[in-house]
Amino acid sequence: MRILGIDPGLRTMGWGVIESRGARINHVANGECRSSGDDLAMRLLSLYRQLSDIWATYLPGEAAIEQTFVNKDGAGTLKLGQARGVALLVPAQAGVVVGEYAPNRVKKTVVGVGHADKAQILHMVRLQLPGCDPAGPDAADALAIAICHAHYRAAERTVLREVRS
Amino acid sequence: MRILGIDPGLRTMGWGVIESRGARINHVANGECRSSGDDLAMRLLSLYRQLSDIWATYLPGEAAIEQTFVNKDGAGTLKLGQARGVALLVPAQAGVVVGEYAPNRVKKTVVGVGHADKAQILHMVRLQLPGCDPAGPDAADALAIAICHAHYRAAERTVLREVRS
Repeated sequence: MRILGIDPGLRTMGWGVIESRGARINHVANGECRSSGDDLAMRLLSLYRQLSDIWATYLPGEAAIEQTFVNKDGAGTLKLGQARGVALLVPAQAGVVVGEYAPNRVKKTVVGVGHADKAQILHMVRLQLPGCDPAGPDAADALAIAICHAHYRAAERTVLREVRS
Repeated sequence: MRILGIDPGLRTMGWGVIESRGARINHVANGECRSSGDDLAMRLLSLYRQLSDIWATYLPGEAAIEQTFVNKDGAGTLKLGQARGVALLVPAQAGVVVGEYAPNRVKKTVVGVGHADKAQILHMVRLQLPGCDPAGPDAADALAIAICHAHYRAAERTVLREVRS
């Protein structure tokens, strides 16, 4: 099963594709979509087009996105929300349900602790996906989100097997 | 020139189409897109499809959206942001620039005061667009946004004429 992880953002949107087979995971591709300029609608369109191209190239069967941490910076939350809306639209158009994971859950799954920093995430992503060189911190986060989703879907299948047997 | 006004929201997205010729404006259509269910991505997709259908039906030449009032309700701002991102994508895909207007500016233009309530907006929208029956308060707001855009684009043309002459 191919999984696309997305770390949403208006300026930079990280993405990472991994292949998950049972307990094994492999790196497929990763990168960062960028948008610039003053016109918000055109920036969102640019992100949508880049993400749609990634979707068409790698055809993921599942997708996962980070749950957004809502803080007191309302303007920042609004910007992130707009980018996140566009990011969620791409898998939805393919009929793929999107897993959502809190940042602490992603960190705990990938690094082992809920308050890991960017360097620790990058280190553990490289360790768990040999040969992978993340394009930047947002791409590393996106790969971590995909790894987290692979972990939880494998765990869910185990639970289902236990329930059935 | 046909103008689409959008009042964005995740649960209800108001829309209104008017025709603007010089200083005259006429009502074309209005309504409210609704989304329900637990799955956020599918709700956003539903809004996107409804708004895309409206776009294809009325083929607006310009679009306008309300600037979002950012408050301390971070979760509400995030939901609205996601819906707003999807709303902005539809005109952007048609290559149409979207005018953004602060709520107070819309109210001041349509009602004459910046702190008008919903009933006053509905009354003035009906008065300025004879024969129009808004589908609900969000549709009335969307028509008010379209009226505001028509007003400002007419004013801009007047200024341009003055500069050129």
